[in-house]
Amino acid sequence: MKVTEDVLAKLRGILADPDRLLTSDADLYSYSFDASFGLHKPEAVCQPVSTEETAGIVRIADEYEIPLCPRGRGTSLSGGPLPVQGGIVIDFSLWNSKLVIEEEDLIAIVSPGVITADINNAANEFGLMYPPDPSSAHVSTIGGNLAENAGGPRGLKYGVTKDYVLGLEIVTADGKVVRTGGKTVKNVTGYDLTKLIVGSEGTLAIITEATLRLIPKPQASLTCMVLFDEIVDAGRAISKVLGSGIMPSKMEIMDQSSIIAVEEYASLGLPVDVEAILLIELDGHPLAIEEEMQRVAEACKEVGARSVQVAKDKKEEAELWQARKLVSPAIVKIKPTKISEDATIPRSQIPEMFRRLKAIKEKYKIHLVVFGHAGDGNLHPNIITDQRDPEEMRRVELAVEDIFKAAIELGGTLSGEHGIGTMKSPFMEMELGKDGLALMKSIKTAWDPKNILNPGKIFPEEGERFELRNG
Amino acid sequence: MKVTEDVLAKLRGILADPDRLLTSDADLYSYSFDASFGLHKPEAVCQPVSTEETAGIVRIADEYEIPLCPRGRGTSLSGGPLPVQGGIVIDFSLWNSKLVIEEEDLIAIVSPGVITADINNAANEFGLMYPPDPSSAHVSTIGGNLAENAGGPRGLKYGVTKDYVLGLEIVTADGKVVRTGGKTVKNVTGYDLTKLIVGSEGTLAIITEATLRLIPKPQASLTCMVLFDEIVDAGRAISKVLGSGIMPSKMEIMDQSSIIAVEEYASLGLPVDVEAILLIELDGHPLAIEEEMQRVAEACKEVGARSVQVAKDKKEEAELWQARKLVSPAIVKIKPTKISEDATIPRSQIPEMFRRLKAIKEKYKIHLVVFGHAGDGNLHPNIITDQRDPEEMRRVELAVEDIFKAAIELGGTLSGEHGIGTMKSPFMEMELGKDGLALMKSIKTAWDPKNILNPGKIFPEEGERFELRNG
Repeated sequence: MKVTEDVLAKLRGILADPDRLLTSDADLYSYSFDASFGLHKPEAVCQPVSTEETAGIVRIADEYEIPLCPRGRGTSLSGGPLPVQGGIVIDFSLWNSKLVIEEEDLIAIVSPGVITADINNAANEFGLMYPPDPSSAHVSTIGGNLAENAGGPRGLKYGVTKDYVLGLEIVTADGKVVRTGGKTVKNVTGYDLTKLIVGSEGTLAIITEATLRLIPKPQASLTCMVLFDEIVDAGRAISKVLGSGIMPSKMEIMDQSSIIAVEEYASLGLPVDVEAILLIELDGHPLAIEEEMQRVAEACKEVGARSVQVAKDKKEEAELWQARKLVSPAIVKIKPTKISEDATIPRSQIPEMFRRLKAIKEKYKIHLVVFGHAGDGNLHPNIITDQRDPEEMRRVELAVEDIFKAAIELGGTLSGEHGIGTMKSPFMEMELGKDGLALMKSIKTAWDPKNILNPGKIFPEEGERFELRNG
Repeated sequence: MKVTEDVLAKLRGILADPDRLLTSDADLYSYSFDASFGLHKPEAVCQPVSTEETAGIVRIADEYEIPLCPRGRGTSLSGGPLPVQGGIVIDFSLWNSKLVIEEEDLIAIVSPGVITADINNAANEFGLMYPPDPSSAHVSTIGGNLAENAGGPRGLKYGVTKDYVLGLEIVTADGKVVRTGGKTVKNVTGYDLTKLIVGSEGTLAIITEATLRLIPKPQASLTCMVLFDEIVDAGRAISKVLGSGIMPSKMEIMDQSSIIAVEEYASLGLPVDVEAILLIELDGHPLAIEEEMQRVAEACKEVGARSVQVAKDKKEEAELWQARKLVSPAIVKIKPTKISEDATIPRSQIPEMFRRLKAIKEKYKIHLVVFGHAGDGNLHPNIITDQRDPEEMRRVELAVEDIFKAAIELGGTLSGEHGIGTMKSPFMEMELGKDGLALMKSIKTAWDPKNILNPGKIFPEEGERFELRNG
């Protein structure tokens, strides 16, 4: 126990409202998990609503060498906010007071607790858009998105969270308030601390404000659903479309297991005998996307698509996307535990990755469902299992390890958009090598010598191995 | 002198061809300057053509603690490649052997000496594009572009060099070869070392290979030239266009001084009585840009443009761009010395920045010409002077300092695309503050404790002040 009565008294002195310091067992329990694995109870939870309060908390943690774990709405799929070494959780979800659109400069300035979808909605009112769209966007906070560098389907055309961050206000490990970047898209004044901090999962600094880049909102969008008898043809269709000079805003894939799961769950009338469905969205000028959609349809048919269905109106468009949206709720009906991975590969390797995933599924006799952002190679192999079955969980652990190995062997990466957290840290050296990992660690040590900022994340502990267990 | 006979012998042992070690006085002189200010002769120049050779050179420099300055074609406008503390220049311009387009993955893999424009040309053959287009693209190497995070007119719509770098091979200060990032657009495996190294001006690591992201090449483009009696209306036109949901590929501005200079130089028939010209390029689907160009023209007229001329064909388009291209050659006809700045401001501040630049011009009685990438607030105030006139140079120094102060006061940055180098390091603390600068410096110290990688750049020396002098 590092959070002594003395520390609690000091924290109370910093928070303008003492109710924003939580210490009851029930409260602490509700901060002990996220959307991934593991149960780790904090010793206290603070809910700051200003930079001053945040810096004050950090200075106390620095003085007493107490672990600090920043947290938004806890939707992390990699263990990002879990207090694995105890200490204080800093819950930013109440601090949603700032959401300013500066229309002329095409920027938004936000406090860390703002819900991500609210930023896009606010931008829409000015004819602008905030593109990053993780599937949790209606629940997750921008602070969490920044910490994990969240992605989403639109990543294909528009990039990820990091591509939209121009500047940050941060609190350093010793409680200093520093601004990085600014309000301009072009900025080469020294090292790019902004892009270093985004995606660093709360281990380098705590983000208290972000300046985000907005872009003009596309005027229109069109969606089609393409059916493939062979999944390898879906891979060829992706290459064909991108090679023809068209950049869709989304290219999502569902494999046969996903299709069957959705169909059993919701009876949408999806054909359960196809190996893959591609959902392709184009956005932009209405005249342009209409003509482009014809070329997309032709390209898909040329590589052997069974059929191409273009949505005729917004209602039909919503229906087509319904299939993709229902994958996650559908698969947890099969078994209660879902391990959602985001191993990402160069898009040319999509067919080979599907082959390897099939082999892994058979080898370990697991229920593996694959869907995701095929256009940028960011697949989501999801293992459906039951954590109460330790023998099955052991097979799942080995399967996950094989999935990571396959991704890296194919020139890909452990994580496309979920982050490393606690879930993937044992595999870091496999991807980065000893020297690459040492370069990262040297930055961590330089910035946070006492290791109080989200300790136990990203970097593997000595001899750590991958285990899926709660509590 | 740190490069002793002993060191030279070892360097000769590393380079497969001894002719790629240059030590003659004439050779060393030709490496003593770039396109900015200052004359600094290296003690030796190495021209590696492989990672092994580069790592070998670095290990010798590490052993003997010799400064290493990586260099491409020396087009830097900020002093990036200058060996201000002597030592060895590593000239990468011969190492242009690798330029591989992996069409299906939409990537290019390049060695550091490849000319930037050659990458785009190679991509074009596959219907793809490498968007960054610094005006030096036909001369400068990708290695230099990566070191300085080069921009260009297309930055408005497409971003800068950093936005197109997926992975790097680097040599660290102690001679280790490390790979960062990879081939995928989405990658959140640990800290983003790739984006930290791009733009670090050779001070953190030496880049030996880069994996670049390509995008589908837009099918068509259209250009218009818009004349404004009042420069403030040009600023309003930029906001109006961007606010209407249109994202031009380029929005370039020329102020009256630039127009007069070009007209005196080349007699293109430009009206010398207007305060500003905007050149706007749209790219994308032919049907879309045709309709959008009408809206651009209407938007410009609504805010008071004198006239809008849309190029009818590629020939006329090239003629319109000729005006912008001739600014640099035109202004050096006025006086021999050109100080090219790249102070960048939020685009809403463009009219105010123009007001301030006018006041600075009058205060210091200097010849100031302003043009640049107005769409993203990245202006190029150029001071035309004569370095043989020390009294005038003193006024120029004060004017430059005032330009930087104005940019920062308006929420902007010292450098949008040229880098800090030796030219702007004295102003770093003004923008970043002591704590922000200390965070950057701590990374430098962690990665390069002997300070051998491009020393004297980015970080101000104790008590350093801004001076413009050669030799």
